[in-house]
Amino acid sequence: MKYNGKPYRTIWLGSNGWMVEVIDQRLLPHQFEVVRLKGLDDTAFAIRAMVVRGAPLIGATAAYGMALAMRADASDAHLVAAYDTLLATRPTAVNLRWALDRMRAALSPLPAAERTAAAYALASEICEEDVVINSTIGRLGAELIAAAWERAQVAGRPRVNVLTHCNAGWLGCVDWGTALAPVYKAHNAGIPVHVWVEETRPRNQGASLTAWELKHHGVPYTIIVDNAGGHLMQHHMVDLCIVGTDRTTSRGDVCNKIGTYLKGLAAHDNNVPFYVALPASTIDWTLDDGVAEIPIEERDAREVTHIRGRAEGGAMCEVLLAPEGSSASNFGFDVTPARLVTGLITERGVCPASREGLLSLFPERSEGAAAAEPSPASAGVVG
Amino acid sequence: MKYNGKPYRTIWLGSNGWMVEVIDQRLLPHQFEVVRLKGLDDTAFAIRAMVVRGAPLIGATAAYGMALAMRADASDAHLVAAYDTLLATRPTAVNLRWALDRMRAALSPLPAAERTAAAYALASEICEEDVVINSTIGRLGAELIAAAWERAQVAGRPRVNVLTHCNAGWLGCVDWGTALAPVYKAHNAGIPVHVWVEETRPRNQGASLTAWELKHHGVPYTIIVDNAGGHLMQHHMVDLCIVGTDRTTSRGDVCNKIGTYLKGLAAHDNNVPFYVALPASTIDWTLDDGVAEIPIEERDAREVTHIRGRAEGGAMCEVLLAPEGSSASNFGFDVTPARLVTGLITERGVCPASREGLLSLFPERSEGAAAAEPSPASAGVVG
Repeated sequence: MKYNGKPYRTIWLGSNGWMVEVIDQRLLPHQFEVVRLKGLDDTAFAIRAMVVRGAPLIGATAAYGMALAMRADASDAHLVAAYDTLLATRPTAVNLRWALDRMRAALSPLPAAERTAAAYALASEICEEDVVINSTIGRLGAELIAAAWERAQVAGRPRVNVLTHCNAGWLGCVDWGTALAPVYKAHNAGIPVHVWVEETRPRNQGASLTAWELKHHGVPYTIIVDNAGGHLMQHHMVDLCIVGTDRTTSRGDVCNKIGTYLKGLAAHDNNVPFYVALPASTIDWTLDDGVAEIPIEERDAREVTHIRGRAEGGAMCEVLLAPEGSSASNFGFDVTPARLVTGLITERGVCPASREGLLSLFPERSEGAAAAEPSPASAGVVG
Repeated sequence: MKYNGKPYRTIWLGSNGWMVEVIDQRLLPHQFEVVRLKGLDDTAFAIRAMVVRGAPLIGATAAYGMALAMRADASDAHLVAAYDTLLATRPTAVNLRWALDRMRAALSPLPAAERTAAAYALASEICEEDVVINSTIGRLGAELIAAAWERAQVAGRPRVNVLTHCNAGWLGCVDWGTALAPVYKAHNAGIPVHVWVEETRPRNQGASLTAWELKHHGVPYTIIVDNAGGHLMQHHMVDLCIVGTDRTTSRGDVCNKIGTYLKGLAAHDNNVPFYVALPASTIDWTLDDGVAEIPIEERDAREVTHIRGRAEGGAMCEVLLAPEGSSASNFGFDVTPARLVTGLITERGVCPASREGLLSLFPERSEGAAAAEPSPASAGVVG
């Protein structure tokens, strides 16, 4: 997607052909800076410190981290050490382990002299796979936006309004994003799409990352507080909702950033289509009832009581919003039951949020079908 | 209610018997300062600058402003000038006009020499009426909390959890508050009540004012982001919701701070009782369908893109949360349809949120009943 009129990905090779460059996402939306990763330690730091975030991007960065490590020392011992170092950076990120396992499996059998080239090639392949998946989700989702735009025109409205929560955009992936991919494809195709960007307290990924993405790609958007989405839907100001998901159950319940459930309720109450965009890798086929079965991470209370932003003059400043010593609770995610979800947009197609719907796209998961280990080319956008 | 162990109201007479003292609410929750109002100009400034806020408190302050004005100059000309000056401070606050009209009507017929004493007496009466109404709402609402506490005990829970949105507490009234009055009464009666305080973006009245009130009165509370209420209800962590209302239609739709509707939906979806506490003066008997008929105020976008808090070191600091130049939309209120409301808690009793329910408490409003002009002794909490 574009920044300053130029197409960007979140990760790419530098002009010398081996250095890895990423956007320092800690500084967004107030500052755009590219960080150069020159070796294993740089890369481990970038993942740990959240210079990069989002499950697919974490996986891709780790893959390139293995390549940088092999370039420095392609011995067996260093391969193991690099794997361990990178795996320890964000131990709960499922894509991190998946990418590292894939790298190790490919590199271990090779003679040391061939490992560096093979590692760069495979890291690149992992990135390209992610781009293809999200581009496909974007194409399929854009058809839904196009249909909504037709309905909006019939109703005499000058644009089609998409509401999204959190950031499921290109910044968390290599390119395109999941929930935002349809928006970019629709916008690029000339459909007058406007996005209601929910700020997404407490970490404000909407107001900071989603708004930044849309601004720089030139997609019209308006930031709203998370409280406002229901009112907008009551008053026909939302044509469809598209959100991402971190984990999707086999019957179509979706676990996404806290507050998503409330928008699912409002969409259902007002007959607004509510879509969830996801790579197949976020589907957890072992789970059924999301509300009962998915444990919800509790994060630091300080994320609720304090907030960071840019003060007048440009310096970053963290401020306290509550009475000193207040306790706060900070659940990171909630579950939107499948009954509130109009459809799931996956790289295999769009389906109802139900077991039958999912199995129609993933027949290999039916009972009786040959059991096959999935190869998640990507996973949900994290953070 | 209590601050530093001492009972306070939001407005009282100073020790010299004529000065009016109020809490500077602009500084909460970070600083507690009492402002002394010595004359008309002080008082007008306090209302205009939101040193005091909340419809009942604005009315009470304006009433005392008339008394201060009479003390300085009780002439007819000054009575008119004081009325005009105070009315211009917050022209949309319905309680402001109501209190000023009442003062003017009582003072105009009197000889100038009697006006000051009469003005102080009537201002005091206006305050006392507000306290009685809210105390009654508190008593009736506390019975609902007591019943919920009994159910919670049966379920083996150690406390009863009330969720509230925004600030409908004593800071916006003279004492007690509307939605928080039941909480205070229950707490004072020894019921182990705990409050989930929604921060209430964008102006954060929950995290700043409600949390401050509860902290200083000693009621256990936990601040959450507005996004979290649905998750808490899904997981049986809320026994009942109590919110305030700025305007209530004759069929029981309630217009309250933006985001209230989303909590009404979540409560309904999870069988959590959802109560609205209100003085009768917030009922607009001329309105029926709140979503269709109530115009919703749009406020400054800067309230969404910027936030103010206390920086490390203690200085107040306003920070930008979004990409420079982002547009934002800021609807101040939304409407929760009566179908989502379990009951209305008024000073006349608790009733279903329906025309029949309201008429059972206010039979004088039935068709055929003698038409009577209502005398709103109080109105919804504003801001």
